[in-house]
Amino acid sequence: MPQTADKNRQIVLKNRPVGKPDDTTLALETTDLPVAGKGEMLLRVEYLSLDPYMRGRMNDAKSYADPVAVGDPMVGGTVAQVVTSDVEGFAPGDWVLSFSGWQDYAISDGVGVTNMGADPAQPSWALGIMGMPGFTAYCGLLYIGEPKAGETVVTAAATGPVGATVGQIAKIKGCRAVGIAGGPEKCAYAVNELGFDACIDRNAADFAQQLKAACPDGIDVYFENVGGAVFDAVLPLLNPNARVPLCGLISQYNATSLPDGPDRMGALMGALLVKKIKMQGFIIFDDFPHHYPEFSKEMIGWIKSGQIKYREQLVEGLEKAPAAFNDLLEGRNFGKMVVKTGTA
Amino acid sequence: MPQTADKNRQIVLKNRPVGKPDDTTLALETTDLPVAGKGEMLLRVEYLSLDPYMRGRMNDAKSYADPVAVGDPMVGGTVAQVVTSDVEGFAPGDWVLSFSGWQDYAISDGVGVTNMGADPAQPSWALGIMGMPGFTAYCGLLYIGEPKAGETVVTAAATGPVGATVGQIAKIKGCRAVGIAGGPEKCAYAVNELGFDACIDRNAADFAQQLKAACPDGIDVYFENVGGAVFDAVLPLLNPNARVPLCGLISQYNATSLPDGPDRMGALMGALLVKKIKMQGFIIFDDFPHHYPEFSKEMIGWIKSGQIKYREQLVEGLEKAPAAFNDLLEGRNFGKMVVKTGTA
Repeated sequence: MPQTADKNRQIVLKNRPVGKPDDTTLALETTDLPVAGKGEMLLRVEYLSLDPYMRGRMNDAKSYADPVAVGDPMVGGTVAQVVTSDVEGFAPGDWVLSFSGWQDYAISDGVGVTNMGADPAQPSWALGIMGMPGFTAYCGLLYIGEPKAGETVVTAAATGPVGATVGQIAKIKGCRAVGIAGGPEKCAYAVNELGFDACIDRNAADFAQQLKAACPDGIDVYFENVGGAVFDAVLPLLNPNARVPLCGLISQYNATSLPDGPDRMGALMGALLVKKIKMQGFIIFDDFPHHYPEFSKEMIGWIKSGQIKYREQLVEGLEKAPAAFNDLLEGRNFGKMVVKTGTA
Repeated sequence: MPQTADKNRQIVLKNRPVGKPDDTTLALETTDLPVAGKGEMLLRVEYLSLDPYMRGRMNDAKSYADPVAVGDPMVGGTVAQVVTSDVEGFAPGDWVLSFSGWQDYAISDGVGVTNMGADPAQPSWALGIMGMPGFTAYCGLLYIGEPKAGETVVTAAATGPVGATVGQIAKIKGCRAVGIAGGPEKCAYAVNELGFDACIDRNAADFAQQLKAACPDGIDVYFENVGGAVFDAVLPLLNPNARVPLCGLISQYNATSLPDGPDRMGALMGALLVKKIKMQGFIIFDDFPHHYPEFSKEMIGWIKSGQIKYREQLVEGLEKAPAAFNDLLEGRNFGKMVVKTGTA
């Protein structure tokens, strides 16, 4: 059934997945519309963000946030419209950025909700270039990566919302930007549309050699969001005093056990030591909240001037979110994955 | 033969070791006294520093410095006296800090040599608390570790010249200092003499549990200089936003192959990510040279006030350096290992 005015569709976590989420992991359920009480408002979700971190929330493990409880709707960033409001500063019709999860409707007391006004230009961009992914790219690159003009910056998932932004900011800062992406179409887009100096297909048989050839002066900043075989190819190319901002490891999220040996943990630490490398994990809204106004101002300027481009992949229909999420985990998206909960 | 005025004893690298250095690795050879030319001076080495990094120089691998060539004397920091001088600013009898290596005599043009004057109070301390190890502890802890009062700082090799200094500075900064050392004697010294809040014997069967009990609020800064089993026990105790300055991995230096699997490299990166940890390798004189005057001034003050204590293990006779170096690699030293090249 489509989005309606009197029922609430939710995608709930039915079973914690072992490995890749499958048909038993999530289910679409329909409940009554929630009722907003005093000091609350009713939100209708228009856009739901799909992001790799959500895979971690499906596990029963304390990560940087609590897991989703079995039976609850999946969590997620959303752009919604206010339907009814008893919250000061929010009126029916206002667009808001909220964390309402995988459902059509939600109740909010306004805490943590940003009012975007009655007529924002590109409301869904608050989930991407102007939101968590863009902000992650900005702070991770500039404040942990600390790129200097002339240095080489490498990012994987180069056409995704984080990687694409990392590469474009690297170019603005005068760096050589080298992307890694899955397939020739994405690589061509990264170079021709986003302005990367080179983009290497991670599926190529000679991927590691191609990456080395694309980084003749080594790698000064590697923005890590995938891990696995990509990192294996990057590590030997890292220069002395390289910086590795670490915001994701999508290649590991569906893993059910550690890979076979040998154990390279000590070897990684040895490489960090002899090359004097900084590797630093970060969670954007934990570690950099005070930088948001600065990010927002700069990013709007770069978008207006055409220095930063942004690509969205819009999936229509909340019911398609589970399949779209698996596409995302396996790199079958092209651009920022957003679900338009209702159909046109 | 002892040190003489007319021959130069050298300990040269005869064979690159596979694993632990043995009797075929180094050899004592005697050559003629080197002759200082115009603009040069002749130095007689009084004290030779033994440091774990020297194991890496025995390998034929480009690390942060070139390997020692087979047939050449081993490199190392030294405190020497000027015998003859044609270098401005250096007079016979002056004590100097130099990098003259494992030998009795060396020629220098004065570049990179620090004049300590005719009568320094504790000349050999320039190789320890006032030199590379002390400076490593100071900058690694303060500028990478960034300890805040009330936080827990853990360091291994807690009675060695780096670890002991890390713990004592941590106490000065208002932190809880927890050491790790080999054996009850060293642990008692760390607590009773150096002022650590606790020190855990890494050889104890329940080492990991003892470490956990000694860190009830987790670990905020782990100063890494050993790796291996010690790091395995530390990793699960690291707090969100912990910092791991990485200046050595002595437990790995004699390893001839990677440990058996599973491969935990990705798991380490995953831990850095979800806990937002910074791990950063550094080489003190590459990365922090401009901090030396500040370090020197602060450290002299701390030593004079009794806030920092320092322990040296003096080995008499250059010929004993190879055995003493193996003792160092295996933790059989107690304090900073220094070779007095001549005998008393």
